Parts: sequence; C-alpha cells; structure tokens
Amino acid sequence: MTDSTPAPKSPSEAEQVADIVRRNFAVERGELVIGGQPVSKIAEEFGTPLYVYDQGVLARQLSELRAALPASFELFYSVKANPNAALLKFIVERGCGLEIASSGELMQALAGGCTAERIVFAGPGKTVNELSLAIECGIGEIHLESLAEARRIAAIARHTNRTMRVAVRVNPSAGIQGGGMRMGAKPSPFGVDEDQLDAVLDQLKQEPALDVTGIHLYVGTQILDAETLLGQYREALAIGRRAAARLGRPLRMIDLGGGLGIPYFAHEQRLDLAAVGAGLAQMAREAAADPLLREAKFVIEPGRYLVGECGIYVTRVLDVKQSRGKTFVVVDGGMHQHLAASGNLGQTIKRNFPVAVLNKLDATPAEAVDVVGPLCTPLDVLARNLPLPMVVEGDLIGVLQSGAYARTASPLGFLSHPAPPEVLIAEGAARLVSGRGE
Amino acid sequence: MTDSTPAPKSPSEAEQVADIVRRNFAVERGELVIGGQPVSKIAEEFGTPLYVYDQGVLARQLSELRAALPASFELFYSVKANPNAALLKFIVERGCGLEIASSGELMQALAGGCTAERIVFAGPGKTVNELSLAIECGIGEIHLESLAEARRIAAIARHTNRTMRVAVRVNPSAGIQGGGMRMGAKPSPFGVDEDQLDAVLDQLKQEPALDVTGIHLYVGTQILDAETLLGQYREALAIGRRAAARLGRPLRMIDLGGGLGIPYFAHEQRLDLAAVGAGLAQMAREAAADPLLREAKFVIEPGRYLVGECGIYVTRVLDVKQSRGKTFVVVDGGMHQHLAASGNLGQTIKRNFPVAVLNKLDATPAEAVDVVGPLCTPLDVLARNLPLPMVVEGDLIGVLQSGAYARTASPLGFLSHPAPPEVLIAEGAARLVSGRGE
Repeated sequence: MTDSTPAPKSPSEAEQVADIVRRNFAVERGELVIGGQPVSKIAEEFGTPLYVYDQGVLARQLSELRAALPASFELFYSVKANPNAALLKFIVERGCGLEIASSGELMQALAGGCTAERIVFAGPGKTVNELSLAIECGIGEIHLESLAEARRIAAIARHTNRTMRVAVRVNPSAGIQGGGMRMGAKPSPFGVDEDQLDAVLDQLKQEPALDVTGIHLYVGTQILDAETLLGQYREALAIGRRAAARLGRPLRMIDLGGGLGIPYFAHEQRLDLAAVGAGLAQMAREAAADPLLREAKFVIEPGRYLVGECGIYVTRVLDVKQSRGKTFVVVDGGMHQHLAASGNLGQTIKRNFPVAVLNKLDATPAEAVDVVGPLCTPLDVLARNLPLPMVVEGDLIGVLQSGAYARTASPLGFLSHPAPPEVLIAEGAARLVSGRGE
Repeated sequence: MTDSTPAPKSPSEAEQVADIVRRNFAVERGELVIGGQPVSKIAEEFGTPLYVYDQGVLARQLSELRAALPASFELFYSVKANPNAALLKFIVERGCGLEIASSGELMQALAGGCTAERIVFAGPGKTVNELSLAIECGIGEIHLESLAEARRIAAIARHTNRTMRVAVRVNPSAGIQGGGMRMGAKPSPFGVDEDQLDAVLDQLKQEPALDVTGIHLYVGTQILDAETLLGQYREALAIGRRAAARLGRPLRMIDLGGGLGIPYFAHEQRLDLAAVGAGLAQMAREAAADPLLREAKFVIEPGRYLVGECGIYVTRVLDVKQSRGKTFVVVDGGMHQHLAASGNLGQTIKRNFPVAVLNKLDATPAEAVDVVGPLCTPLDVLARNLPLPMVVEGDLIGVLQSGAYARTASPLGFLSHPAPPEVLIAEGAARLVSGRGE
C-alpha cells in the first residue's frame, strides 16, 4: 500500500457481512458453510462462478413472515425476484400463491407445480397473446392496468365463455415511500390513478365477462422501515373501502403489494417484522369490523424478502494486480452475472453489496481493494475500496444477499461467458437446479 | 395535455432521428424502409419485439473505415459489440480479424468462419481453461494483462510445445480521453501500467515460450472527436517506440485499440473519419521512417463503429395511458432487451437514445411522452419526455443505433419474456439469424 491508497473505511461493511453470515450461515475454520456444505466443496464440485441458494434460509424467511401475519392474510410470491423452478416449487408447497408478470413466468409457475387458480398476473404491458394464454389455462386473477386492458380481457373471456376475476391496480393520490413524509403523487405508468378509479369501476361493473374482486396497490420496493410499509398498506385498506362503496358490494380481495426489504448496505437496519405484524393485526381487526371488507382476502406479495437472503454469488480470484497504488482483485464473475452488485441496476449511488472472502472470514482486513470482473469495461466492478484480508489467486469471493434480482436481472450474455449454474442446498445436500447453458 | 406536462423540447431529438434515418435507411409513405423492406412487413413476419440489422449499412461503415485507413493498418472487429454469427461471418469475409474476450466469443468467432490465426484474445480475467482452449486451437495472439497471466500462458505453451505470440496491454501514464485535455493517469484494472512496462518486457524476454510481438493500448470508448482519438493512437505509437527500444528489436504489432464512436444523442456530432484517416496516414509515414516500427502491423479494433448504426430495436405499442397530465406509451419491449437505451448501462445522465415512431416518420410531434416497457419497475423506460407524433396501439416504436451493446448487454431473462429474434436484411431479403429461445 502506498500513500495514495484510500484508508480502509470504518469497519461497518465488515460488520454488515458478519451480521448476515451469523443470521444465515455458519463458519468453520474461517470458511463459510452453507446449509452444512463448506463453500469450497460446492465451488469445487460445480465450478465458479455460481449461485448458491440455501433452502433452510428461504424456509426461515417464509415461516417468520407467515408467523408475523394475521390468519386472513395470504402470501403470493413475486416470481420476478427469482424465477428458478426449484425455489418456486418449495414456496408453492408451503402454501403460497404466485404473482407473475409475463407468459414466461406463467410457464415457470406451472413448472414449479403451482395450480393456475393460485396464480395472479400483474404488469403494465401484457400482450393479447399473454392474456389469452393466462385466461385459457385458468389463471386465478388478473390485475388490471387500464380500461383498454380490461376491454381486451373481457373480449378474450367472452370468446371462451368465461368470467374472468380481475382486480384494479391503483396508483394512489397520497403518494408513497419516503420515511414518515408524504410526497405528492407523481405520474406513473403503473395501474390506474386513484382519481380515475371511480370512473374505471363504473365501467367495469357494466362488463359481465369481468368479475371485480378488489384492488391492488402499487407500492415502493425495498422498504426497511415498518411504519413506511404500514403506511402504504393502510392506504390500500382505505382505497379498498372506497372502492367497495363505489361498487356497492363487499370486496373479496385487497392486494397490499410487496415492498418488504432486506439489508444490503452497511447503514441499513433489518425490517422490524414484529412491528409490521402488529400493524397488520390492527388492520385485520378494522377490516373485520367493516361489512364491506370483512370478507376480503388480504394478499402480500413478497419477492426479495423471501429469496434475497438465501442466495450467494460465488466467484474465484483469477489475479491480484497493482496499478498506481491501488490493488485490483480480478475474479471470474462480474456485472454480467450480478448487475445489481455492480451498481448498474438503477442505483444513483454505487454502494458496495455485502462482499467477502468466503474462505477467509476470520482474517483481518488488510487493505481496501477494488473487486473487478473479467469484462473489458470499467463498469465491471463488484466492490469499490472495500477493506478485505490479503487475497491470493484461487480464493473465493462472494456477494451475499444475492437470491433476488441477481442472476435474473443480469445481462448473462454480455461478452458471451457461459451462464453460471444455480445450486440449491437442501437437507445437507447440494444439487444443480439450473444448467450452465441456460 | 394539461399545464403540468413539460413543453416539448427543442426539435433537436427529432432532427437527430431524421439525420440517422437519411444516412442509413429510406422512408416510404412515412414508414421506415430497412434494406428495401418496410418495417411493418418485417414486424409482421417475425413478430415484435425484435432486432433488425441492415447488412448494407454494416458494409458501408466497414468500407468507409477501410478506405480511410492507411494500407498498413488492419481491422480486428471487437466481438463483444455484437457476437451474432451472421454479422461475424460478413465481417470476416471482408478481411477483418476478430478480437475476443472469452471462450464463448472464441466459439462464436470460429462459428462465424474466422480462422484461429486471425483471432486475438484480450481481457482482464482470462481463466486457465480459456487460455488453454485458445492456445490449443491455434489462436493468433494473446494480449497480456499481467505478469501472472504471462506465466500461465507460458506454462500452457510449454506443455503443448508451442511458442505463443503475445502483446502487452498498456495502461498509459499520459492519461486518456477528455477532449483536448490531458487527464492524470488513474489506477486501472486493465493491462500493465506504463511505468511497469520496462520491467514486464525484461521478464517476457526471458521466456522462450512467449514471442512478444508488440503492445496494445487501453483506450477510451465512444470517442467522437478525431483529435482525441488520434491523441490516443499517437500515444500508442510513442509507447510502441519505447517498447521496441527496451526489447532491442523492431515491433511487429501495435494495437491502437478501438474507441471510434457513433452519435447517439441530439448534441453529438459524427466522427470526422477523413481527419482520423489523415492523422493515421501521418503516423504511418512516421512509422515507416523508424527502423523499430517500419515492420509493425497496425491494428484498429472497431466494434460499435462497424455494427452500431446497422441495428434497430423494434417494439409495438400495447397501450397509451394518461397519468396526472403525463402520457405513457407502453410498448412490448424494454430495458430487459435494451439496457443501454433505458439509461442503465453506466450512464450518469439519462439521455434519450434516438427513438421514433417507425410507421409515422413524416408526422409532426404532438406531445412529449414517456415510452415505457412491460416490466414492473420504474427503471423500464426507453424514452423520457420525448416529443412524438400521436401514437395508438399497434404503432411501431424503434430505437435506432442499436446494433452494438444492445441485445448482448441486456438482461434478457429479467421477467422471463422470450428473447427477441434477430433479423438480418441482406440483398433485399429478411432472414432470421437467431432464435427466440436463445
């Protein structure tokens, strides 16, 4: 290290990694152990780079969330977070429905063993082909984005002699997100503006091929503050009450959306699930006292919250280079396989994901380094100025919290590297749950 | 439109589109014609979304660039810009070599009909497996990133009784990019710092399994100013001269890198190829007068410059929505198929790519709209506040300048939509050059 190297940051990034490892995994002789399997053994068997999912962590996230919710609440997993069929199968077998956003996700949902009845279809750009396919296979419900879409669905339903259950996705006037602060409502491509909702419901009532069950609120994502999340959910309840009054009959479904976050960065606190649960219990009591809402099924759509923590992206060190006083650790994976960790998935500030040397978890950080991938672009960075222990060729570097929006949201074909395998650790055994070539 | 809608911008975005269309395509009755084929016919035949490549535009870019270069210069196409085998085949048949950055690109290059001898392998994270494969199939040259990599290559070469031609990729001290301004050199994961070059060459000379042919300069990308580009190329010549002196023998190869840009945004001017050519001619004369450089082959590695202009990403309008005074045009493609156009491929400022209503090119802009895709994320935007003519369901909206770093750099699997087909228009006929399922 020379004078020009930035001093290692506060130990908070290392503490964040230690906290995540303690919660989800084990450490033996300094090495990460995932569901009973040492990471070096998994890497040896399946090659690197790869994604490892720990079914035990997924099971715990699901049962903790389930336990926090009132009995009248149902979980529909948001497939876009991770469409791997083995994960879907596990989630479906434990009683969740699935929320899909494309015909490809419909196929994955069915491949994961979900009955069509337990699938809801949401998303701003559904094609006629996708809608036809979904309706013909008997999907449970479609969440409407516009009156034009409602007309398309009605036409398909009439053509096949069905009545299609639909709910209206609402873009609330009260605004969303932002801690305790209420922001003004913005234009949005998602759903129907709340001030258009009455007019839309009036139209939908006229259409016998559509059966309006309720509403779906468009909410923010990756929320770690319980009160912010509950504020959105309460808004959905209030809008649901008004929608029922307009329809002139009780609602059967209120989809509160997802939005439950997990911590990625050193400054982030874990979501207080007990506080969320207490708030939802109060909401359930209010709904039970309201004739227009007491029959309603409440739906939460977690994606990231269920699968995010169970996944680790594992790479191997190919080279350690010095350039003008800075150390670059070159690994065999990168932005093409984990766009979010590289800071190119919508981040305005490029913060480091929880990145660690998986076979040296007990070692003291020696130097702040950049961890870079094999692509010929300066965008291919997995960590910047991150204090790590001394690293050598062959060490394993992993990105934690990589079960959601990692592989699925990455440009896997960029520079034509083979797509990494996905490995599921379940009941002490590791098995391949997707191929290299996919 | 209400008062809260932003006023349409200056007509420069529309002028940029018109300029690109005039240069590359034709317009008939307001509709884009690509290589003799109306875009509506192509969309009807192959479905949307899709990528269309015009071989005629590729041919013109290649011949214009070739004509501007001195005879002693060779072109090696940078496969990462677009690895489609049909494009590679065309480029190889016209005498170009190929520059690859992974074993997957090696396979594509061979599939495109390139002989191994005419392939060079560059990139910061080559695995031992990739190096072995490249050496065993008789690749022409490998561009070194570090001494550690040189040792790995030498070991493989010795093991297979070969001498491997290598060049050293250099990270120059003089700094790169930035108009006429010289910026201080920064730490970089690419290549060998110039101040380490002498020591590296001294080591390489000792290794009989390696044959050092020359150097390769790491340069910036997407450069539109001829003088900036020439400044980088001249720097490569100067470094090459010093490297030859240190080696004590003439260089046989100087790879000047790529960096030739194409205009994407309304304020951007086209690269002055005549000025680049004149500067390179002067460099060639200087080299011819220098005993250490007169035998050297000069290599330029264009990627984007050759294929960028020939490609159009074509989508179809699914819905037109109003929300709080703003119009959203929802199309059937988006960020998952064109990450760069959505502003999520390293852009710090989200400017609009050249986006147009391909079947209404003669119509006057009516309103500034957002063009959004089908994904459930606010990141899925193809154009922001873009003045477009009145749009209805079924219209075709295209992103021009989409032949390079479009499909290949996109997270195709995000939300599990089928991957769009690629269609090549050549000699008046359209044919599928990749499948939906890829």
